[in-house]
Amino acid sequence: MKLFNRVAIVGTGLIGGSIALAIKKKRLAREVIGVSRHRKTLLLAKQIHAIDKGSQDINIIKDADLVILAVPVSIILKSAPVISKIIKRDCIVSDTGGTKQEIVSRLARILPNYVGSHPLAGSEKRGIINANPFIFKDSLCILTPTRKTKQKTQEKIRRLWSQLGAKVVILSSDTHDKILSLVSHLPHIVAFSLIGLIPKRYLGFASSGLKDATRIAASDSGLWVDIFLSNQKNMIKTIELFQKNLSKIKSAIKKKDKKLLSRILRDAQKKKASLG
Amino acid sequence: MKLFNRVAIVGTGLIGGSIALAIKKKRLAREVIGVSRHRKTLLLAKQIHAIDKGSQDINIIKDADLVILAVPVSIILKSAPVISKIIKRDCIVSDTGGTKQEIVSRLARILPNYVGSHPLAGSEKRGIINANPFIFKDSLCILTPTRKTKQKTQEKIRRLWSQLGAKVVILSSDTHDKILSLVSHLPHIVAFSLIGLIPKRYLGFASSGLKDATRIAASDSGLWVDIFLSNQKNMIKTIELFQKNLSKIKSAIKKKDKKLLSRILRDAQKKKASLG
Repeated sequence: MKLFNRVAIVGTGLIGGSIALAIKKKRLAREVIGVSRHRKTLLLAKQIHAIDKGSQDINIIKDADLVILAVPVSIILKSAPVISKIIKRDCIVSDTGGTKQEIVSRLARILPNYVGSHPLAGSEKRGIINANPFIFKDSLCILTPTRKTKQKTQEKIRRLWSQLGAKVVILSSDTHDKILSLVSHLPHIVAFSLIGLIPKRYLGFASSGLKDATRIAASDSGLWVDIFLSNQKNMIKTIELFQKNLSKIKSAIKKKDKKLLSRILRDAQKKKASLG
Repeated sequence: MKLFNRVAIVGTGLIGGSIALAIKKKRLAREVIGVSRHRKTLLLAKQIHAIDKGSQDINIIKDADLVILAVPVSIILKSAPVISKIIKRDCIVSDTGGTKQEIVSRLARILPNYVGSHPLAGSEKRGIINANPFIFKDSLCILTPTRKTKQKTQEKIRRLWSQLGAKVVILSSDTHDKILSLVSHLPHIVAFSLIGLIPKRYLGFASSGLKDATRIAASDSGLWVDIFLSNQKNMIKTIELFQKNLSKIKSAIKKKDKKLLSRILRDAQKKKASLG
C-alpha cells in the first residue's frame, strides 16, 4: 500500500522539487501535485517527472491527503490560513521551514493534522533545476511535534522522511531554533557579513579558503532574511555570543598573548576534527 | 642553464615540500637541499624526490645560491640572523611567510639579497605528506620588494615563481598585510571562532554549510598564531570592522527591517557571485 494517495508540494524549488522527485522515485504516493508561482517551474517539474500535474492555483491541492509547504518561512505563515480552507479534514500538513517556533505555533493552531519538519539538506543552489531525489539520503530531518500533535500524523511524516533516506530526530520547536541558530543560521550570517566586508578590488587576492568560508553566502537571500527574522531572539543572542568570542581573540592579539591565542585555536581545531 | 645551482629549502612542510618537488620536477636547480627539525620529514622528502639531500643541521645551506624559508613567521624571524652568518655573500634569500611587514623590515636589514614572497597557495592540510608540485599552478604569488631590493634578486625570484606556475604580483609589504588581513587572516579567525562557539553536543546537527565555512579551522594553529600576532594592527582593525558589520545585521534583525536586511544579503550575494 502506498504511504499516501495524493501528495501536494507547495513550492517546487530545490527542496520541494527534491521531495517530489524522491516520492515519485520511491513510489510513495499514487500522485504528486506541484504548486508554484512560476509556470516554467511547473513545466520543468513535470518534464523531469517530479510531479504528475501542477498548477499556479493553490486550489489544486483540495483532494490531497498530504500537503508539504516547501516555501520560504514568510510564505508558509501567509499561506497556512488559505490552505486550511481548501484541504480535506483529514489531510496531513507539514512544512520544510528552517525555523520552527513561529511556524509551529501558528500552523498547529489552524491545521488539525499538522507537524513541522526541517530536513537538514539542500545547499546554496536553488530551484527545480538543482532538485535531486538523493539529497535526503543520510541527512537529518528534525520533526517538531507539540503535545497536541496526533500520533498518526507524526508517524506518517516520520515514515515519509525515513523512506526518503533521512534520519528522523524529534525536537521541540524552541530547542530546534536554538540549535539551528548556532549550527546553521549564524554561519550564514557570518558568511554574508564576511564577503560583504571585503572591498571588490581585493577579491582577486582571495584563495580557496575565503571561497569555501563564504560558499553559503550564495544562498537565496529571500529565504534567509525570513529565517533570520523568524528566529529573531536566538539570532540576536547568537550574534552577540559570536562577537564576544571575536573580542576574546582580538584581546589576545592586542596583548600578544601567544599562549591564550594558541589555546583558543587548538580548541577550535580539535572541535573541527570531530566535526569532519 | 639552470635558474639556480643549489637551492636550500628551510622547512620541508606543505609549502616548502611543494616548492622542492616543483623545482625538481621542472629541473630549475642542479641540487635541492632540505632542512627540517624532523628526521622523518627529511627521509620522506628524499623518498618522494623532493630533495637530493637533507639535514637537521642548518649549516648544510652554506653553499646554496638560493635559500627559501618556508617555516612559520616566528621561525623565519628567529632563523634569519643565524642564516645570514652561514650563507655565501651573493646567496639570494626569500621566504613564504603569510605576513610581510615584520619579516621584510627585519630580513632586508640583515640579508643583502633578500626579497619577500607569499605564495597564495596551500590549504588546511599540512606536512610533506601533502606536498604537491602543482599547488602553485594558476595561483598568485605576491613579491614584496623594498626600494633597496636589488633588481637581480627580484628578477630571479620572480622567474622562480613564474616557472612554478604562479602569477607574480608586486606589492609593498604594508599593502600586502592590509589586503591579506581581510581576504585571508580574518576568514581564518572567523572560522576558528565560529567552530569554537558551537557546543559539542550540537555538532551532530551541523550541515555541509558549517563544515565548509569552518574548513580552514583545521589549519595548523601554530602557523596562524604567528600570522595573527605578526599582523597585529591590521587584525585588530579588521576584527573590529567585522564586528561592526555584524552589528549592522543584528540591528536590522532587532528592528525587523526586512528591506535593509535584504539589501545587505543581496549585496553580499552579488559579491560572492563575482568571487566564484
